[in-house]
Amino acid sequence: MNTLKDQAAENLIAVRRNVPLIHNITNFVVMNVTANALLAIGASPMMAHAPEEAAALADLAGALVLNIGTLTREWVPTMILAGQAAATRGKPVVFDPVGAGTTRFRTDTARKILKEAAVKIVRGNASEVHALSDVESDSFPGGKGVDAVHSMEAVLPGAMRLADRTGVTLAVTGPIDVVTDGFRQVRVANGHPLMQRVTGTGCTASALIAAFAAVDSDAFTAAATALAVFGLAGEMAAAGANGPGSFMVNLMDVLYAMTPEAVRIGVRIEEA
Amino acid sequence: MNTLKDQAAENLIAVRRNVPLIHNITNFVVMNVTANALLAIGASPMMAHAPEEAAALADLAGALVLNIGTLTREWVPTMILAGQAAATRGKPVVFDPVGAGTTRFRTDTARKILKEAAVKIVRGNASEVHALSDVESDSFPGGKGVDAVHSMEAVLPGAMRLADRTGVTLAVTGPIDVVTDGFRQVRVANGHPLMQRVTGTGCTASALIAAFAAVDSDAFTAAATALAVFGLAGEMAAAGANGPGSFMVNLMDVLYAMTPEAVRIGVRIEEA
Amino acid sequence: MNTLKDQAAENLIAVRRNVPLIHNITNFVVMNVTANALLAIGASPMMAHAPEEAAALADLAGALVLNIGTLTREWVPTMILAGQAAATRGKPVVFDPVGAGTTRFRTDTARKILKEAAVKIVRGNASEVHALSDVESDSFPGGKGVDAVHSMEAVLPGAMRLADRTGVTLAVTGPIDVVTDGFRQVRVANGHPLMQRVTGTGCTASALIAAFAAVDSDAFTAAATALAVFGLAGEMAAAGANGPGSFMVNLMDVLYAMTPEAVRIGVRIEEA
Repeated sequence: MNTLKDQAAENLIAVRRNVPLIHNITNFVVMNVTANALLAIGASPMMAHAPEEAAALADLAGALVLNIGTLTREWVPTMILAGQAAATRGKPVVFDPVGAGTTRFRTDTARKILKEAAVKIVRGNASEVHALSDVESDSFPGGKGVDAVHSMEAVLPGAMRLADRTGVTLAVTGPIDVVTDGFRQVRVANGHPLMQRVTGTGCTASALIAAFAAVDSDAFTAAATALAVFGLAGEMAAAGANGPGSFMVNLMDVLYAMTPEAVRIGVRIEEA
Repeated sequence: MNTLKDQAAENLIAVRRNVPLIHNITNFVVMNVTANALLAIGASPMMAHAPEEAAALADLAGALVLNIGTLTREWVPTMILAGQAAATRGKPVVFDPVGAGTTRFRTDTARKILKEAAVKIVRGNASEVHALSDVESDSFPGGKGVDAVHSMEAVLPGAMRLADRTGVTLAVTGPIDVVTDGFRQVRVANGHPLMQRVTGTGCTASALIAAFAAVDSDAFTAAATALAVFGLAGEMAAAGANGPGSFMVNLMDVLYAMTPEAVRIGVRIEEA
Repeated sequence: MNTLKDQAAENLIAVRRNVPLIHNITNFVVMNVTANALLAIGASPMMAHAPEEAAALADLAGALVLNIGTLTREWVPTMILAGQAAATRGKPVVFDPVGAGTTRFRTDTARKILKEAAVKIVRGNASEVHALSDVESDSFPGGKGVDAVHSMEAVLPGAMRLADRTGVTLAVTGPIDVVTDGFRQVRVANGHPLMQRVTGTGCTASALIAAFAAVDSDAFTAAATALAVFGLAGEMAAAGANGPGSFMVNLMDVLYAMTPEAVRIGVRIEEA
């Protein structure tokens, strides 16, 4: 799909030209890595979770990331406040429902944020998206914490219905990523298994989607192209890595050095 | 001691086969590094400190880590709740009393957690363990923050009595680590001085002990073998390092690439 | 300026000899990096934000760092308490007003901390220092979050007046850093553009200033020499870097390996 390859390259160029401020209300584990990845791709990160400045940051930011990785009850009102403040100003809100489906607390909170925080894009693994879309069954599979226990194929029909009903773009990541807005659907084949062996790659993907959505008004193409560019960076980083430690170092170097040409050649986005 | 060499290799294999979920209520400084070390060794990390999901995570997890590195009063009830929930389900609780002995607040809190959180294994340096075991003298040596100011030899008798009285396994780390359950005692000679020049290696040791304790029902052998494997990884990581930055990168690569054969050859656990 | 070159080398030697404990009340994004940088240079970091131990840590520490990067209202009283406790004991307080000037919440809080926390040194970029010094205009330029939007030249007169009025040493960082105590003023030419492409280098500079201030009773020379040594480390780290990932790894290695001789040859501090 030539169009999305070109769009991926254009989005990378636009991020570097506009240097959008990305406001992150995110988890403690990945704050540093996410900020560094945003800097490496060319955006400007701000990690801030005080309710007093949510509206002021919505004025300045190009996009907002909400991430519940180290969720506590106290942060939820600020997430909703920040989401609404961003949406009122036309800034896209990317939601990462880390661990939804693992505990009732996470699932309930994730559903609440999805309903009340003016979310435009959700990025999660198959189990997390399933927990948001399968509101009837209300099953809690538990499983391996924040890792997916559902197959992509099993959760896609529910995800399509959720996207169709809510207008939210869903970016479901796994060995092959699927992005859908309920009408369109693509598969992103970029990526590398080492991305699963370091913490925070899913969260970083969400942050990069926000950076692309800050410069691309189509949430669907922003999400698909960001995942492709990040997956491509993962492939390139793995090439010279001896394990997860050197992989993470390379990943930041590769995001920084990524060129539009490499993107046009390397991204693999296929119509589903 | 051939038995413990074999046990170390078996524990490594079992972690990779079972991929135990390790629930961490830990400090902000090391959340990222600890999660990456657990992923590198083959376990599945979850960093979560909300009381609402402590019981649900105890159902899913293979072990729990409690770490007071960036202690505030508000986190203590959740630590105790999570510890009791884990113990009720037969899941081992590893406690890292960071900075105990440095301030009265830390010492008192550490003693409270030790008493109320159903702790099975304590991993600390000599000063931290001394602060837990020397309840009579109630001395506060202060010293260099979270670094040890006591010698291993000075604190071992008290540690033995504490282990004997409480049934807790104590893993006292330093240039030579000592592990005791009050009956058995071993010394672990693996390790490298560079491990003291990066933050979070003690905390990472505690997390790896939890991963081993999730697959080895004997807390004493789990603690000793985890320290030996981690110390061995430190030795291997230091071999190609130019300083603490490249050491940390290598450490993750080495944990990921560690083989049972390398463990059998390299671990140095001696009867005390 | 031969004197400050020698002072830089002497301060490095003194940090390594005395291993001062540096108490940090800092933001979640940089806790790990800051702790590692302090360890690499030879100091002993402690990250702790509980009010219960602020006074006890002031007894033990050589200096205190206050940093509002991930500011919430709840942390402010502890910062003020810790600042006063440190000052009472003659320990220097270094304040990093991250994002002051970006939102009213940050600007107001930064001014409150500057007024009430017995601050001895402020380290910030031009916009942050402007927000502290330009109390009359009360302008909120917004801009790119925590990055500077003001030029160094525009803010220096106000900074000089602020330093003169309050007795605080101001370390204003940018492509060229300026340090002033209202009477003296120097420019530090060390540094590398890659330092702007990783998160937390400003915060790390503040922490290293605290380490130097713990061994050098002249806040002005402590700040200038710490910035020069850190900037020099940035230059050396960039030499072998492929991007921001390997740059950060090198930076820790270089700080660890830095010699007084390299400092004497490499630092570039000029009278303004």
